[in-house]
Amino acid sequence: MEVNESLDRLLPEAAMHPSSLHRAMRYSILAGGKRIRPVMCILVSEASGGVGRDFAVRAGCAIECVHTASLILDDLPSMDDAELRRGRKTTHREFSEATAILASIGLLNLGYAIITQSQDTDPEVKVQALDVLCEAVGSKGMIAGQEIDLHERHGFSEVSPIENLNWLKTGALFVASAQIGALAAGLNPSSVDAVKDFAKHVGLAFQTADDLIDHSGDIDAIGKDVGQDEGVPTLVSLSGDDAARLSCEENLALAHDTLRKTDLDSAGLLALVDSIFGSKI
Amino acid sequence: MEVNESLDRLLPEAAMHPSSLHRAMRYSILAGGKRIRPVMCILVSEASGGVGRDFAVRAGCAIECVHTASLILDDLPSMDDAELRRGRKTTHREFSEATAILASIGLLNLGYAIITQSQDTDPEVKVQALDVLCEAVGSKGMIAGQEIDLHERHGFSEVSPIENLNWLKTGALFVASAQIGALAAGLNPSSVDAVKDFAKHVGLAFQTADDLIDHSGDIDAIGKDVGQDEGVPTLVSLSGDDAARLSCEENLALAHDTLRKTDLDSAGLLALVDSIFGSKI
Repeated sequence: MEVNESLDRLLPEAAMHPSSLHRAMRYSILAGGKRIRPVMCILVSEASGGVGRDFAVRAGCAIECVHTASLILDDLPSMDDAELRRGRKTTHREFSEATAILASIGLLNLGYAIITQSQDTDPEVKVQALDVLCEAVGSKGMIAGQEIDLHERHGFSEVSPIENLNWLKTGALFVASAQIGALAAGLNPSSVDAVKDFAKHVGLAFQTADDLIDHSGDIDAIGKDVGQDEGVPTLVSLSGDDAARLSCEENLALAHDTLRKTDLDSAGLLALVDSIFGSKI
Repeated sequence: MEVNESLDRLLPEAAMHPSSLHRAMRYSILAGGKRIRPVMCILVSEASGGVGRDFAVRAGCAIECVHTASLILDDLPSMDDAELRRGRKTTHREFSEATAILASIGLLNLGYAIITQSQDTDPEVKVQALDVLCEAVGSKGMIAGQEIDLHERHGFSEVSPIENLNWLKTGALFVASAQIGALAAGLNPSSVDAVKDFAKHVGLAFQTADDLIDHSGDIDAIGKDVGQDEGVPTLVSLSGDDAARLSCEENLALAHDTLRKTDLDSAGLLALVDSIFGSKI
């Protein structure tokens, strides 16, 4: 798969000193994973003819670095204290807690470096892409989401703060992936808005589907700890399975509608959605 | 002080949700600190007439964010397990371990965002500055240094790997600070090399002086845990106090010489060096 091959090339070699750090970085990111975010970024760039595709591949890999960095942190003893991720031991259990934290920062930083070091890309496009990524990661994005998840979520009794949390933890990086693909391709503002809207709905559906799986609990199917949200409010626990499944379907329908209204070639993006959700809901 | 005022403006407000995260970020970075790196960045931009000074101030603040992020991590229970930093409780002791880790990532990410969002700066300069910063932070820079410090340093019996470690942990970001100041000012390549060389020698002297203080151990003077390197090889433990002091003086002399050979107005930079080391060695 193109994304995996690119990641393999972009990551420092395992033997590079200090090897423990570089092995941990490679272990975490090359463990598998569906690569939904980079694939979305690349497919958005293809949907208008493929201009900027090379940058979209690099930026997609950068986004996957950022995403993996967040997974390593979420799994730490001081956070979710998880044992399994992507079907094998979490990074801090395979290496050490300190090495896991440093590997996470290493991946985040590598993500930014992959964008700055892209050849043949307009510096203005790189700066815009980095800005989008920083917003999605930052203390008003994923980092805020993780802090709220750890320290506030247990008190939530309504759907609205849970939806906000899902947006911060999942939606923001989905939308950033589509937006960066659109920047790579130089899409016009209304098309940029459309693919962001598409990604927002896909992200919401994805998070809801994830909660449904965690709730139904099949560890072999998803390769990470399940039942971790037990006793923690989620869309599923607050609204029930049926309402969550309905919300998921509604978001997927909205995602389709959004693309249909553009002049983009959306076949690839729609196929991506089918491949993600075909087996999930 | 200009850097502190700029940092205060650039940091998210403490009340911003999630407040615990933003309070932790502000607590860590506004706790004081000598701001040597941002001041060096700004002074380098001033040494050729002050072109690009506004960007140098922002970039200097970005570098201080990155530096503070590294201090929070170094102090974590899984790393140095430190109690004090900059004269008060370390971030994970004042907040929680999870919040400290997220605040560190938040500051690192904010550093990058401060550069991407700089107004009236050539995108190419921003990209170059980000690239320099990513290199200094990355898994061949500070992150590598921290991993080596934790897992390899105890076995070092020679000066050379210690010097390499000091370069990774301290020198790389000192040099990046000067280099980014030079990029902001648009210095010619030979002047860029000179200020990088200057910063390298200042960084080496600074790390050696730090080891000397840790060895002599006056907690009130430095506001962080002392004696932490007890039993751990440092330049001081391997070469002795006198040789370390001599190495420090030699590096300062080399720093002076390097600047003297340029046509830069180096009064500010030399005054910075005096202010750092006047009371140290």
